[in-house]
Amino acid sequence: MQCEIITIGDELLIGQVVDTNSAWMATELNACGIEVKQISSVHDDAQHIVAALNEAFERADIVLTTGGLGPTKDDITKHVLCDYFHTELIPDDTVKAHIEALYKDRPDVLNRLTETQWLVPKAATILPNRVGSAPLMVFHKDNKILVSMPGVPYEMKIAMTEQVLPYLSAHSAVFQRSGLSGAAGLNSIIHKTALVYGVPESVLALRLEEWENNLPADLHLAYLPKDGIVRLRLSQYSNNLSAEGGLSAQRSDSAAVFKQLLELLGDDCIATEDKPLESILGDLLKERHATIATAESCTGGKLASLLNKQPGSSAFYFGSVVAYDNSVKHNVLGVRQEDLETFGAVSEPVVRQMAEGVRRLLKTDYAIATSGIAGPDGGTAEKPVGTVWIAWATPTETFAQCFHLGRLREQITDRTCVTSLTKLIKYLHIS
Amino acid sequence: MQCEIITIGDELLIGQVVDTNSAWMATELNACGIEVKQISSVHDDAQHIVAALNEAFERADIVLTTGGLGPTKDDITKHVLCDYFHTELIPDDTVKAHIEALYKDRPDVLNRLTETQWLVPKAATILPNRVGSAPLMVFHKDNKILVSMPGVPYEMKIAMTEQVLPYLSAHSAVFQRSGLSGAAGLNSIIHKTALVYGVPESVLALRLEEWENNLPADLHLAYLPKDGIVRLRLSQYSNNLSAEGGLSAQRSDSAAVFKQLLELLGDDCIATEDKPLESILGDLLKERHATIATAESCTGGKLASLLNKQPGSSAFYFGSVVAYDNSVKHNVLGVRQEDLETFGAVSEPVVRQMAEGVRRLLKTDYAIATSGIAGPDGGTAEKPVGTVWIAWATPTETFAQCFHLGRLREQITDRTCVTSLTKLIKYLHIS
Repeated sequence: MQCEIITIGDELLIGQVVDTNSAWMATELNACGIEVKQISSVHDDAQHIVAALNEAFERADIVLTTGGLGPTKDDITKHVLCDYFHTELIPDDTVKAHIEALYKDRPDVLNRLTETQWLVPKAATILPNRVGSAPLMVFHKDNKILVSMPGVPYEMKIAMTEQVLPYLSAHSAVFQRSGLSGAAGLNSIIHKTALVYGVPESVLALRLEEWENNLPADLHLAYLPKDGIVRLRLSQYSNNLSAEGGLSAQRSDSAAVFKQLLELLGDDCIATEDKPLESILGDLLKERHATIATAESCTGGKLASLLNKQPGSSAFYFGSVVAYDNSVKHNVLGVRQEDLETFGAVSEPVVRQMAEGVRRLLKTDYAIATSGIAGPDGGTAEKPVGTVWIAWATPTETFAQCFHLGRLREQITDRTCVTSLTKLIKYLHIS
Repeated sequence: MQCEIITIGDELLIGQVVDTNSAWMATELNACGIEVKQISSVHDDAQHIVAALNEAFERADIVLTTGGLGPTKDDITKHVLCDYFHTELIPDDTVKAHIEALYKDRPDVLNRLTETQWLVPKAATILPNRVGSAPLMVFHKDNKILVSMPGVPYEMKIAMTEQVLPYLSAHSAVFQRSGLSGAAGLNSIIHKTALVYGVPESVLALRLEEWENNLPADLHLAYLPKDGIVRLRLSQYSNNLSAEGGLSAQRSDSAAVFKQLLELLGDDCIATEDKPLESILGDLLKERHATIATAESCTGGKLASLLNKQPGSSAFYFGSVVAYDNSVKHNVLGVRQEDLETFGAVSEPVVRQMAEGVRRLLKTDYAIATSGIAGPDGGTAEKPVGTVWIAWATPTETFAQCFHLGRLREQITDRTCVTSLTKLIKYLHIS
């Protein structure tokens, strides 16, 4: 079963907004066995939207669109879909009642523009949008399905989870039974990921070469390097459709093949799931009933933000001190003023005292401290931009290391987070 | 001059990676007067890449691709481009010397896979990739241009800035002189944005209706609502191409029209540039030579991370205490234990003491404190998920307010950041 995603909105094409919707949707669709063939972003322009719909329907059985459903003049998706499916707008009482309830305390919002939100295409099946005013619209065309959703990420996510995926599952069963559209049906797509730290992509590829050359035809290996980590992904598509689109008679045992991969990776593999590093660390800490704090200079709260992003983080994450200014390093974390002056903020003695200081202050088992030159200014010949000291304080020891993590501010911050989390994960694995 | 972006990689289509490249590229291209017509993400699949190239060349003069240039088996872009442009791979001595210099300290990386990186298509113009091993490849076809770049964001950004944009500028001048390809040439694209807080989209649209209906044909207004802010964008495309693709004889005075918009918005407009809220606040603080700190519970370091993301933030941002656990609120920020017990962590007395505590501890002029129930657990009938208290401490007073900011963890965190920054921006505007 193949799907395409079309995200609609000028803001995407001028770079005002990053399309985060598509990746989220693709993950959820894959989990349901639906493959995403292409993602396209197009302008709020009738002719262009129609062209994109035509192209997508040529390749896929399901087309999902987001965006262009607001009440203002620049949003035209609903009108374009009416023309495309030769239908007209009619009022929908259920949608009307929902919108009136949604804005019952906001009479100013229940105005004549908002009223246009309960006009829906006559030919569409309407699914409720529990948290917004734009209804979800489903169209059927030659045994194919189009679903139009709002572009606001929170609304789209709730719509997908509660309405769209259940609807597609129900209707794809119809496809399978009737044998229509040549679809592979909702057979499962499997992705297994191993995270490797400290081995360059090409070195890794040589190590795996023989094994990779002997992979069964329905299994496919991908290398995804970023910030010093290579994510190795083994993918398996549905029974009758291989990754290359050809037919494969038999489904291989992907679990057994993945196990071979892990044996080849040995200790270089730091995780066997495609989870963020902060979740991997969080799970290790939870297992040990241990807690963590961070003292951050160059990462400036990013580690904190990563660690508590996940639900349930209060079980292991206590807090952080973002010590951006040197006065905070001294006054709050207790770093010796003379060390700041003698060695500078980006130095081993300072980063060690930061880690130990925050561990003592917040009374945690572990602590990570970062101090580096993220640029664009502040670099010297001795400590160029990209120089980063990281320290880890544990119940038994404190250790620190110096790294050179790139040239761009964002890159240096990201790599500092990756490096500091990975080293602690490796430490917990062996301790 | 129209352009299309094609991002290549299975990881984009299975949701393993969010395509942040395209938005960044679109912003830079727009600034050079190049309009982005469509963004497409496709699999590492020869047939599919070729189809996407054909479709893009039908619509645009310039096609930019990212991804698929690594040394491993799953990366096929270079080979597909060779077939597409009927050419073959040949070794390039300049690229070879660059790669050997790049990995001079890593003999293990200078292996036979990495060696394939200095094979380049004979028909391509090669531009140097200063920070990576994959060369940038430029192809010309029927007076149109294709540039293939690596997908790693840092490499792509340096490639675009230092190589691709200068190359396109130089070559589009050739287009203009020869009058080829019907391109509008590198005339300027103008986007002017006003940020409005606290007015729902439909209410705003009614207020602007008459003015919007009378906009000149070459100006286009777009509404972009998110987290309680509406970004109003007035766009003007090139001289001979209106937003709808039609011809407009004359270019309007967009500055004068934008001024009219600002008059209609009055005090509801909190900024007249499309800058992040943290930059707007940063600039206001820098003007006043004032400093800020944050004490964060439910935002967990996100405010800190936003405030110091921008270069030069050390002028106004001192640091933060992420007080996720109540012990940190009490021990580090000095929140009274009895208030934590009597009123709970999400309460006015606690959030006020957090703001005042961090302002005192870090010795700053201003402070923001947040404490809320971000969920999914922890909600009660009295304080449901989404309840957030925010406090602002200033040199003269402390004020606090309770908000209800949604139901999803991520949404609540984002909206808390937006609300806390916006309120302080408004306060600084009038104080």
